[in-house]
Amino acid sequence: MTHEDREQRDFNSLRVLALAGGVGGAKLASGLAELLGERLTVLVNTADDFSHLGLHVSPDLDTVMYTLAGIANPETGWGVANETWSFMGQVERLGGPAWFCLGDRDLATHAVRTERLNRGDSLTAITTEFCRALGVRPRVLPMSDNPVRTIVHSDTGALSFQDYFVRLKCEPKVSGFSFEGASGAKYNSKLDDLSEERNRLVIVICPSNPYVSVDPILALPGLREWIGATGAPVIAISPIVGGGTIKGPAAKMMRELGHGSSALSVAQHYRGLADALVIDERDRDAAQDIALLGMRVRVAHTVMRTQADRVALARECLALAEELRCKA
Amino acid sequence: MTHEDREQRDFNSLRVLALAGGVGGAKLASGLAELLGERLTVLVNTADDFSHLGLHVSPDLDTVMYTLAGIANPETGWGVANETWSFMGQVERLGGPAWFCLGDRDLATHAVRTERLNRGDSLTAITTEFCRALGVRPRVLPMSDNPVRTIVHSDTGALSFQDYFVRLKCEPKVSGFSFEGASGAKYNSKLDDLSEERNRLVIVICPSNPYVSVDPILALPGLREWIGATGAPVIAISPIVGGGTIKGPAAKMMRELGHGSSALSVAQHYRGLADALVIDERDRDAAQDIALLGMRVRVAHTVMRTQADRVALARECLALAEELRCKA
Repeated sequence: MTHEDREQRDFNSLRVLALAGGVGGAKLASGLAELLGERLTVLVNTADDFSHLGLHVSPDLDTVMYTLAGIANPETGWGVANETWSFMGQVERLGGPAWFCLGDRDLATHAVRTERLNRGDSLTAITTEFCRALGVRPRVLPMSDNPVRTIVHSDTGALSFQDYFVRLKCEPKVSGFSFEGASGAKYNSKLDDLSEERNRLVIVICPSNPYVSVDPILALPGLREWIGATGAPVIAISPIVGGGTIKGPAAKMMRELGHGSSALSVAQHYRGLADALVIDERDRDAAQDIALLGMRVRVAHTVMRTQADRVALARECLALAEELRCKA
Repeated sequence: MTHEDREQRDFNSLRVLALAGGVGGAKLASGLAELLGERLTVLVNTADDFSHLGLHVSPDLDTVMYTLAGIANPETGWGVANETWSFMGQVERLGGPAWFCLGDRDLATHAVRTERLNRGDSLTAITTEFCRALGVRPRVLPMSDNPVRTIVHSDTGALSFQDYFVRLKCEPKVSGFSFEGASGAKYNSKLDDLSEERNRLVIVICPSNPYVSVDPILALPGLREWIGATGAPVIAISPIVGGGTIKGPAAKMMRELGHGSSALSVAQHYRGLADALVIDERDRDAAQDIALLGMRVRVAHTVMRTQADRVALARECLALAEELRCKA
């Protein structure tokens, strides 16, 4: 298939479920959204959720939602564009905790969400309402309406995710992860709507952190089985680029866990689940070893600096999905 | 005593406990603070406190604190000066409750307070810390560390105070008030520090709403007895000016309760508790009837538009207190 062919395809027949964490996942989701609109569902990690200053904060869910709404802060990747910071200034003045930055607009999301959760609404229903208010066309789903919390096991003991990630700036050396509450949690029941369209379905594992963004989703009882039962092709995009990461601690974690930070490690991680792996041009050398694992490999430009980059990578994933479908 | 005498007095020998609600109370407290500094304690109504968007909001406590810190919004009387409103804009966009206005800076107070309350700190300890951070010299005390909530009984049923006051803009016709939790609540134990200085003590009932700002404080078991036991002169300032109010529903409430909105009604309300009532020049005609109730009356300029007005009224109260002391 030529480049021109791909450019012209509209992927009308596809319906995509993307598994996503924060910034990297949100970027690819935004590329997919441009091609698919309402035919995209994003299942988002909520194991980073935490309670801060009395408010329920869902960092990954918000990053995905803001990005798809076109209101994400382009500099940070998280939070809202044109943000003001009066709140944080006063929190510091009052001697409050300033380690987690909450912009004034962003804060509204957490506050309204907290109020609705306290009233008994589900995180799914609240997210759907927010997305409607913000004009988001794809369906954004929290992975579960039950609380699941990532615990980072490290050389300084067991840490809550935000403690590790934000407060300690990922400095402790990790030895493993656990997902508190996962074994009793239910994956989002709205996924069942997708089962009915299994013939058109493609599953995309976004270039998010495999350990702390994607694994919590996969830890939900029955979710791997659900994915298998759909028969949909599963395409993962490597978050590792040139042996490192663009953002976030995935490469550091891989090294600390003794896996080596490479596209091959990503392939090994998703072996048995993903049918194909999209790797960056800089990791081209790993293609052969990955193929030996029985995984289809596609080499692409995976670094998404512009919206055009996001759409191009999304296009690459969908073209690959159609090839996998035809082959199957 | 001449005007000049009063101007020169520094009231060094006095220690004042002021009972206060929101805006009117905060203004007089600020005048008293200028004369007394650390020798002023303000006991503030917390029966208006409520939970909003997951946050513990203490409207009266904050109005007093912000006013004493010199950061109150001069236009509204509540909230913080130089406020920004990004949060509320986004709350509305998300379809959240916009009936209670929370500025971005103000929000920090509620969020940090909520976090500390959830951690087990007392409202008293949190308020003391906030006051220190904001450079407030007088001691600001919540009336109690136990939750007490004003219920407004009205022609549309029993309403929580903020529902009545903010959401329904005081429109329902009131028939009475109750203070949920009051009978089991303890008045702030820091008052006992003042008992030791009872010989210097003066108690000032600020020109706050008698029914919903001062009565909740007086409803705390043992507080009236504590006041009596100190032997301190008790001076109330009428919130009624020319038969109406500057701000707030006190006059409307008085009429609806069938008491008539007059300085005399205020005197009748505080009979048995207050030794003296300061009334406005416009209510001069009521002086004789009030005196017949056995209460000392002082006619003064009670409308506080400027800081000079606040200090002048504070001076008037303290001069009256000294006279009452001498007489006693």
